[in-house]
Amino acid sequence: MRAAIFRKGDLVVDQVSDPRPAEGQVIVKTLACGICGSDLHAFHHAGHMADAMKRTGAREVMDPGRDIIFGHEFSAEIVEHGAGTAGTLKVGTRVCSVPMSITLQGEQANIQSVGYSNEVPGGFAEYMALNEMLLLEIPNGLSSEHAALTEPMAVGWHAVEKAHMTPEDVSLVIGCGPVGLAVIAGLKIKGASPIIAADFSPARRALAKAMGADVVIDPAKVSPYASWQEMALPEGFDPYNIATLLGMGPMPRPGVIFECVGVPGIIQQIAEGAMKGTRVVVVGVCMERDSFEPLFAITRELNLQFVFAYTPEEFALTLHHLAEGKIDVAPLITGRVGLDDVKSSFAALANPEAHAKILVEPWR
Amino acid sequence: MRAAIFRKGDLVVDQVSDPRPAEGQVIVKTLACGICGSDLHAFHHAGHMADAMKRTGAREVMDPGRDIIFGHEFSAEIVEHGAGTAGTLKVGTRVCSVPMSITLQGEQANIQSVGYSNEVPGGFAEYMALNEMLLLEIPNGLSSEHAALTEPMAVGWHAVEKAHMTPEDVSLVIGCGPVGLAVIAGLKIKGASPIIAADFSPARRALAKAMGADVVIDPAKVSPYASWQEMALPEGFDPYNIATLLGMGPMPRPGVIFECVGVPGIIQQIAEGAMKGTRVVVVGVCMERDSFEPLFAITRELNLQFVFAYTPEEFALTLHHLAEGKIDVAPLITGRVGLDDVKSSFAALANPEAHAKILVEPWR
Repeated sequence: MRAAIFRKGDLVVDQVSDPRPAEGQVIVKTLACGICGSDLHAFHHAGHMADAMKRTGAREVMDPGRDIIFGHEFSAEIVEHGAGTAGTLKVGTRVCSVPMSITLQGEQANIQSVGYSNEVPGGFAEYMALNEMLLLEIPNGLSSEHAALTEPMAVGWHAVEKAHMTPEDVSLVIGCGPVGLAVIAGLKIKGASPIIAADFSPARRALAKAMGADVVIDPAKVSPYASWQEMALPEGFDPYNIATLLGMGPMPRPGVIFECVGVPGIIQQIAEGAMKGTRVVVVGVCMERDSFEPLFAITRELNLQFVFAYTPEEFALTLHHLAEGKIDVAPLITGRVGLDDVKSSFAALANPEAHAKILVEPWR
Repeated sequence: MRAAIFRKGDLVVDQVSDPRPAEGQVIVKTLACGICGSDLHAFHHAGHMADAMKRTGAREVMDPGRDIIFGHEFSAEIVEHGAGTAGTLKVGTRVCSVPMSITLQGEQANIQSVGYSNEVPGGFAEYMALNEMLLLEIPNGLSSEHAALTEPMAVGWHAVEKAHMTPEDVSLVIGCGPVGLAVIAGLKIKGASPIIAADFSPARRALAKAMGADVVIDPAKVSPYASWQEMALPEGFDPYNIATLLGMGPMPRPGVIFECVGVPGIIQQIAEGAMKGTRVVVVGVCMERDSFEPLFAITRELNLQFVFAYTPEEFALTLHHLAEGKIDVAPLITGRVGLDDVKSSFAALANPEAHAKILVEPWR
């Protein structure tokens, strides 16, 4: 089959062997697969990323010296059932799956990350091998393109779940890339209000509005933290007013900040901008060492909830959110390319004015 | 009156004016006042500490260029009622108070930190001015020495409250200085089990045992994190076992780590040693910039709850815990000195084998 392959630091299109189904697996034809920020990071810093994953205790870590086929945000169509499958979903059924490939060795599971593995191909290839038990049928006539966004949207939904939102919370989303936009979509479904979102890019701010942000802010012009505090604090709020100190005055609404940037320095920026007791959900994946001044977090009694990925249940629920029209991902999809254009798309995604999510459609 | 005064970077004993009660204040005679780690920090890095407090938004910050009388862990005796007091507690009553001095300017409260202020003396002086409404009578014949430990013990209690303990939690306390010991005492009152505590000092480990730790660990010999994980994980636990992956096998108990050291590098050490989903309560007050690798916190989905001080209610409850014998602070008190020995005590506290808490008794 044809695939866009990460090979010796480059992205090349080449023929590779078709995947073979392990016990319990099916072969699927890739319909659409999004390019994720992590893919860009892996492309530019594969060695560093692999080392970091190894140091955090991951057991199966890709070897950047060998071929890797990226792509973990996909929709696909069943083309063949392997041994030990039930065949409940017929050939031709369109499906999604969490990007994991599980094979058994006795009672031990061997888990490969679909999209970051030397062993199993990800979605930037014509075909993949997926576990039948992880397949979710795409419901309700949802388009394959939109279904491919289940994965990044599930990241946002998981982050919102971890925030344990209350009706009083005033939310601030820092960074409106696909992760931040997914968080906004999740907040909207939860009924959170107001939702404030900040990004330097006008196009990203427009997308934030489209996904449900009530207020969008250009941090080059206005402090997002000041605007957010203004909405959380009662008019004329004075922390040194006697009634306030005695707990008898109007109190600030609780604040939640979603960190969706993932670069060094953002946590300190948030700690400086936060209010007493703010919950910070760290969704951005910063792969470098970061530094901050704990005293800000201490005196404000901040809570930092670091989050990662999603549960299978959250993934399945997200697919239904898409199918039921609770999230409209259409505005996020800014490009559709074949395998030959994967490499140029990686470059094009550097410009937030031009792109949010580019889908790779290997059949093109 | 006599006082040990922080003056131009030194600690000197000198005569200063007696404090005068503002509206609603009483004058008290200091009975006992503990030396806190923050006092040592302020002694050595007063300028840096004042700058840091200013940057985090504190309104009233001490000027290290002018006299400061430290001491915020105190018990005292009422000697005089000022104007606008009710006199409910008579002269001679022994009391504690949160270390705050509040004076009013219209509806605005002017709040001074007793112990870190140029305006109001702390407990390393014969007399203090305290707000009548903040006074708590020392109950139940509790000794004045033990009552002076209400403040540091309240810090530990607050941290434990912020951990939202469940009966399943396996607790690890990193650092057994007074803060770590206060956390252990709080965990014991909550019925937490097991409580694992780690400190390089044999004397501190003995105190941890005395305060209620079930297991004490010398990090020079054994990894506290490995020992703690061993208690949290079911025997023979294998995260890659199929039954475990399907949520049908025995699951790890939830883990809570209390960071009670407060120096750069500890957060990264904890992030590396933590299990998936560990709650980390940061009680140590690190006043320097710190660095860490977010990826560890992200892939483990850690929750970092930074905590600071306590509420007035927690302070009052802690005094009752002491009075009811729920915490025995006797083993912590390793020295009692007069004002002339405050400076040498600051030096002596550098040795954890010799000292935990030294009480200053200005009447000696």
